This record gives sequence, C-alpha cells and structure tokens, in this order.
Amino acid sequence: MNSPYNKKDNESLSDDIVWHNATVTHADRESLKQQKSVVLWFTGLSGSGKSTVANAVESKLLSLGKFSYLLDGDNVRHGLNKDLGFSDQDRIENIRRIGEVAKLFVDSGSIVLTAFISPFISDRQQVRELLQPQQFLEVFIDTPIEVCEQRDPKGLYKKARAGEIKHFTGIDSEYQAPVSPEIHVKTAEFSVEQCAEQIVAQLEQRGYLKLSAV
Amino acid sequence: MNSPYNKKDNESLSDDIVWHNATVTHADRESLKQQKSVVLWFTGLSGSGKSTVANAVESKLLSLGKFSYLLDGDNVRHGLNKDLGFSDQDRIENIRRIGEVAKLFVDSGSIVLTAFISPFISDRQQVRELLQPQQFLEVFIDTPIEVCEQRDPKGLYKKARAGEIKHFTGIDSEYQAPVSPEIHVKTAEFSVEQCAEQIVAQLEQRGYLKLSAV
Repeated sequence: MNSPYNKKDNESLSDDIVWHNATVTHADRESLKQQKSVVLWFTGLSGSGKSTVANAVESKLLSLGKFSYLLDGDNVRHGLNKDLGFSDQDRIENIRRIGEVAKLFVDSGSIVLTAFISPFISDRQQVRELLQPQQFLEVFIDTPIEVCEQRDPKGLYKKARAGEIKHFTGIDSEYQAPVSPEIHVKTAEFSVEQCAEQIVAQLEQRGYLKLSAV
Repeated sequence: MNSPYNKKDNESLSDDIVWHNATVTHADRESLKQQKSVVLWFTGLSGSGKSTVANAVESKLLSLGKFSYLLDGDNVRHGLNKDLGFSDQDRIENIRRIGEVAKLFVDSGSIVLTAFISPFISDRQQVRELLQPQQFLEVFIDTPIEVCEQRDPKGLYKKARAGEIKHFTGIDSEYQAPVSPEIHVKTAEFSVEQCAEQIVAQLEQRGYLKLSAV
C-alpha cells in the first residue's frame, strides 16, 4: 500500500531535501510490523461506547501481536489540542489535527484507532480524504441516545438536560450518523467483548492483519 | 518506563471515562516492540544534515528490527502544521505541536526522530519537559555554518545572503546551540554512515534497543 503522503504534489519545505534520500519507506514499516496500516475512525454519541470498544479492540490486537495506538480525549485534548476550545471553528480544527496525526501513525505502519464523537459528516469526510481509500474505515458505534443517556457515565446528559451544558451532541447539537460506515457496531445488543470481536473479524476479513494485498 | 501521560494530573475530557478501562498500557506496547521508546530530537542549522543523518539512523534501526518514525518538514509542514506560517508565534506553535506528536509516538512505544532546525533553547526545553526524563535525547547536528553554506542544497543561504529570505537561521536569525546535548554529531568530520552509527551506538549503550531497564 502506498504512503498516505503523496510527495509529488507537495513542494518540500524540508531544509535539506536535495541532500537526503528517504531510505525507510512506508512499505518497510508495514513489512516490519507484518500488517496493513489503517485508521479505525470510531464515531458515535457521548456514552455510546467508543473508547470502551476501542480499548477492547486494542487489547485483542495486542494479543495477536499487532501494533496499534488509540487517540482519544485523554491523550489529545490535554496535549496537542489543549489550545482549542469548543467553538465550531475549534471543533473543526480539533478533528482536522486528529486526522493529520492519524495519518502520521498510518505512515508509520500502525493501526490507529480514534475515539471522538466527531458528529459532522463533513469533518469525517475530510479526514477520509487525507488518506488512501483503503486506509480509512469508519466505525459507527450505533447506540440509541436513550441507552447513552441511561449510562450517562459522567452525568453529562443530566447537565445538558438541565441546560448547564450547551451545544451537547444529541440534545441541542446535531449528531450526523454515518451513511455507509465500513463497520457498524451496536453496543446495546452485544457485549463490549462481542463488539470488539466483530471489529477485529472485519480487519481480518479485509486483510489488514497480514501483509498480502488488501 | 512510565507512560509520558501522567493521567492523575489531568482532568479527563473523554466522554466515557468512567465506563472504560484502558487495557493496553505503554508498557504493553514497548514489550510488543521489544524496545524503550524515546524521542531523538535532532537540532542544527539548515543544511547541517539533520534529515540525512536521521534517515540513515532509521534505516539502521529498521535493519535491527526496531520500530521508528521520522517527523520532518515533509510530513508535518504540509499536514498537521499547514495552517502555520513563519512568525515567531507560529514557529513556537510549530515546535509545540511536533513535541506533542512526538509524545504520542513515544506513548505508542516507538523511537521517534524529529528533524527540525528548532533554533531556540526554550522551545527544545519545552518539548523535553513534556516527556519523562529518559524519553528525550537531544541530538546536536553540529556542522559549521561555513560547511552548511557551502552545501546549500536548496540555495537558501544564497537567497538569505541576497536578502531574498528574511529571518534565516544563522544569517539574520539566531541559532542557539544546545548546551549539553545527549548526543553530539559532527557531520563535517564523519560520513553520514559514521554519524548514524554513532547515534545507534548511543541508543544501544543507553539501553533503548532492548527491554531491560534503561
């Protein structure tokens, strides 16, 4: 599979591009890892189970000796994106940067999982377009809002209903469900373990967990 | 080695933190990769050989079966940081984001190399402070400016001397050399191959290429 970086379209800003030859390629890195790199872009409501299922998938991939990394609120919002707030503009920039970092991890040969609500189709589409067609799989964590609100692990729905949080996805801000996600997961009907198994099975069927052509 | 993310100091913004338990740890990822993750932060003048030597190091690490990734102008300036220009503020933000991305790669268990001029001590120090003490090695690519200017692979020094480029590091903008870099490399005295060997030897001596305690 090609590198997600299409260098021929880019004018290089590297300060010594003429002198250096990139000796390690994306193919080398995939070969070392014995897998095809891809972004598993989880999307779903707050409380839908994105992080939980993503963690369970990572655990399964680890046990298979596969190399993955999970980008989520814990490691992105307090670090790379700590300068961003929750305005529309900042939310778009938040997803853009996560997409670019996911692309770097794909270039490194990893399977990268992202767990963010990412409510807007246009933002998710922009990330998809950053990557080669087979390097982006949309994973719709499809949990009815009633179930999410019942779980309400951090009491956010309660606060949103009370008007203490504004622009809360699913309450007073839109969630645009994926139209044709590559992977569709229903956490209200299956256990976390089963959901993770379904996703890993998809990765296997689609050929990402070995090096032969996807 | 600990995760660079010190979660206890962070109030989590993840939307389902209570429900999920992070099952795959930084130690798991290092164990799978059989190495200790670290940032090799290359710094030096334009034309000093940062990218060239970093590429040669990556190539050697690949042949040793070690997992690395190189962040440089090619994959960062056109992607994650394409919204940034060359003002002082944007240069600082450029290095900050690269540091945060390097931290994510360290968390994933990788050896990450960065090849940016990064002329200011304070910016490099800020990146160092993002990481655990043994997860940051400053690599000073120490090439006399006369040699860099003679190489001038992209004709940038010529343009800077002619006043066509302003604020060019080493000409009309300061380069603050590292005071006590962990690794000191002289490309005017050794071949690219020898420089790369010196760096890999340092990684071996310091215990990064195996899993026993660093």
